[in-house]
Amino acid sequence: MNIVLIEETDFIGPHRVLLQERQARHVIKVLRAKVGDRIKTGLVNGKTGDGLICAVSDFRVELEVELTDPAPEALPITLLLALPRPKVFKRVLSAAVTMGVKKIFIFNTWRVDKSYWQTPLLRDDKLNEICLLALEQAVDTKLPEITLKPLFRPFVEDEVPNLARRHENTWLLHPHSGPAAGIKYAPLNSALIAIGPEGGFISFEVEMLKKAGLKQFSLGSRILRVEQAVPAALAPFLLSTTL
Amino acid sequence: MNIVLIEETDFIGPHRVLLQERQARHVIKVLRAKVGDRIKTGLVNGKTGDGLICAVSDFRVELEVELTDPAPEALPITLLLALPRPKVFKRVLSAAVTMGVKKIFIFNTWRVDKSYWQTPLLRDDKLNEICLLALEQAVDTKLPEITLKPLFRPFVEDEVPNLARRHENTWLLHPHSGPAAGIKYAPLNSALIAIGPEGGFISFEVEMLKKAGLKQFSLGSRILRVEQAVPAALAPFLLSTTL
Repeated sequence: MNIVLIEETDFIGPHRVLLQERQARHVIKVLRAKVGDRIKTGLVNGKTGDGLICAVSDFRVELEVELTDPAPEALPITLLLALPRPKVFKRVLSAAVTMGVKKIFIFNTWRVDKSYWQTPLLRDDKLNEICLLALEQAVDTKLPEITLKPLFRPFVEDEVPNLARRHENTWLLHPHSGPAAGIKYAPLNSALIAIGPEGGFISFEVEMLKKAGLKQFSLGSRILRVEQAVPAALAPFLLSTTL
Repeated sequence: MNIVLIEETDFIGPHRVLLQERQARHVIKVLRAKVGDRIKTGLVNGKTGDGLICAVSDFRVELEVELTDPAPEALPITLLLALPRPKVFKRVLSAAVTMGVKKIFIFNTWRVDKSYWQTPLLRDDKLNEICLLALEQAVDTKLPEITLKPLFRPFVEDEVPNLARRHENTWLLHPHSGPAAGIKYAPLNSALIAIGPEGGFISFEVEMLKKAGLKQFSLGSRILRVEQAVPAALAPFLLSTTL
């Protein structure tokens, strides 16, 4: 946790915040913060700044906060992610959120096992928890918008074409794509990035996604795992937003 | 597994190979390959090509192999990785090997818990297993060279300067580095990349590594996890080797 993220409901005074449970334990046990210390603090979906520790008792920490700085810039990316196994999904979602993606569609494809859609990780409260931890890692405050699309065809036929029109780059990551449509580095503006499931898209899906406006490209001849492909595909944007 | 990797000891004839155990089970159960099918095959540290399935019995598969193609090009990267928690280490090593890194030094720093050096994952047989699975994912055959450096100071003072001189780029990935020394994209030649432990390098270590010839840079203002930073840092090289 590189920033303590608070919610409006944590306020007990105009600038006074009460941390409890996980966050209080972390501040006490891991950061070993004491009264008088300052810790990086942010309001979920709001500004970041300083929290001055005013009181520490058994697993309760009171902070006097001053939040004046904007959250870091979002990546100009919309991510279309075929739902991977729950364990991998958690890691991939964390990576995307830590790296600054704010718009994520989780969608179904042929090689997505039906059982994956039953995972409790897709419940709002669980998604929220994964995202908050990822933002605390990244020193960011803004939650992403996550939309579940359990039906491939209506999503790709009716919604993806509009998404594609609204982004300058439209990348369909697909490992077996032969000569790759090259990624052009810097300056990179917005991108719609679609990443297949473990095992990849089937040809029919590739064709449908291309018809919806995406361009096929690969990250080289090696076949990467989903959790490697996502950070690799986002990397050029990290660099273009900051250098 | 996107390629079946065989060893010299698997040969039972000039071109005939016997697969057993994990690989045979995978070919039978996951690929559902039958006599007459061809599957992508490679010799560890050798060439790749075709394996024609000649016989299938209970968890034994016989292949007639023809290996004529070179393994994919290696990334021109030497990776210096501070040893993370075992669970994370396994993922990070897999990612680096899948993405094509062939020279890896695992080293110690202040924030590497001493207990991590006791993990069985660092035994030769376990490292070999992790690497083979990663190569089977990547469709590659060449095992990386992995060296353990459990003492920070002699490694950084005596060996890193020589490594730094042999690479065109020398990147010290460090999240809190303020204005970043920019990564220049394309064409990227060789690079020495050092990545800190979970929690980062301490200032003393940053200074030592800079003195050894590395240049500090960051992947933006966000603090990434090690398993996200490694694929992100390698991504520009994937692209320059293939486009």
